[in-house]
Amino acid sequence: MASSSIATAHKPLEDPLVYLPRSIVMEYRKGEIIYTHDQPGSNLYLVISGTVKITRMTDHGTHVVLDLYGPDEFFGEAAFVSLSHTAEQAVALQKTTLMAWRAGDIEEMIMKKPNLAIALLQAFGQRALGFTERIQSLSADSIDQRLARTLIRFSERLGTTQTDGCVVMQPLTHELLAQYVGTSRELITCRMANFRRQGYLQYSRKGITLYRDALRGWIRDSTQSTAFTGAMA
Amino acid sequence: MASSSIATAHKPLEDPLVYLPRSIVMEYRKGEIIYTHDQPGSNLYLVISGTVKITRMTDHGTHVVLDLYGPDEFFGEAAFVSLSHTAEQAVALQKTTLMAWRAGDIEEMIMKKPNLAIALLQAFGQRALGFTERIQSLSADSIDQRLARTLIRFSERLGTTQTDGCVVMQPLTHELLAQYVGTSRELITCRMANFRRQGYLQYSRKGITLYRDALRGWIRDSTQSTAFTGAMA
Repeated sequence: MASSSIATAHKPLEDPLVYLPRSIVMEYRKGEIIYTHDQPGSNLYLVISGTVKITRMTDHGTHVVLDLYGPDEFFGEAAFVSLSHTAEQAVALQKTTLMAWRAGDIEEMIMKKPNLAIALLQAFGQRALGFTERIQSLSADSIDQRLARTLIRFSERLGTTQTDGCVVMQPLTHELLAQYVGTSRELITCRMANFRRQGYLQYSRKGITLYRDALRGWIRDSTQSTAFTGAMA
Repeated sequence: MASSSIATAHKPLEDPLVYLPRSIVMEYRKGEIIYTHDQPGSNLYLVISGTVKITRMTDHGTHVVLDLYGPDEFFGEAAFVSLSHTAEQAVALQKTTLMAWRAGDIEEMIMKKPNLAIALLQAFGQRALGFTERIQSLSADSIDQRLARTLIRFSERLGTTQTDGCVVMQPLTHELLAQYVGTSRELITCRMANFRRQGYLQYSRKGITLYRDALRGWIRDSTQSTAFTGAMA
């Protein structure tokens, strides 16, 4: 599981894939629903290729993007809690292939191969760290800072670094970025144009090119120069 | 682990405490630090009595409260990721007693009792659901709605229901609520006074009394009547 934003580990982490048997590979078209809000979440999924978008429907009737998952990343960990419904929706953001295992089957495998459990606990621990970083950013950062961190986070997990150091990743609509950052599409369009004008990124329908180190520098400077008031609503 | 806000489970969840050996009970005074931001997180902790506050220091030099944990709740799950530092601080919010186990020891126990792993995976899955509900609220709710959900969440996990249906819980400073909701202390003081005036709660230095069902009704009405603009920054 990718975790470039997380501090160096003391010892190598276990890889769950070493202990999981191959499952049938399922293919989804762009935009195809993998599961919806009102279904019980009973599978743990692994992305083989493509990208999956996980959303939650709010009481306001809008969608919040919880995360995007790319190759070698798991989703559906709530399957272990065996809820009547997950409140989450998973959609293929592009042509995507997945493997899936029933939580009950994984529990049976764990009884025989406890190392699988340790690998999953480590993966879930990393996932929790990602969530707490996001909570921190949503609580304390300005919209600009939240957007910059979002772009960096997605580029680390879904992008490809070029020889000149910039990172190329798939196109992400301003609507999707707005649903992840927690603001309106209009504001995202305005701030993306600002970042482009300042030379931190380029974007088109084909993809996003991010000058990631420069954008990291911008976050550093902006957090040092702004007071907490930046995040006040 | 308490999870009253989470939908009904299909089957009873495993209880990790059935499989964990008793450890030495450690006692902390009110305000005493359990671990700091720059220490490696190597233990999984269980609250026996009292309350623990987990914070993250932001780049802005402020603190975000990640959560409060009360009796029978775990914290420190990042220990399984074996980071060089956790970026989190744990402090006893009142006189608190804890048990702790080294992550490495738990991994050894799992090799002998794989059921412990399943119990922990379920507990971590529930924890992740709590984080995603929080991300949803931070992304889509107004400050008033975030504050109301925070009070309900804490009352479910840390409060005691009275015979007349209201819930009594320990005092929570406006500073702490601000660090959890992601806003300023001044705004929290203003909104808490509003909720008190409207009869949803009472508070003093001794504690908070919450008319929880009424506050839930207020959230329902407010999300139906407000558009998404309530959360726009």
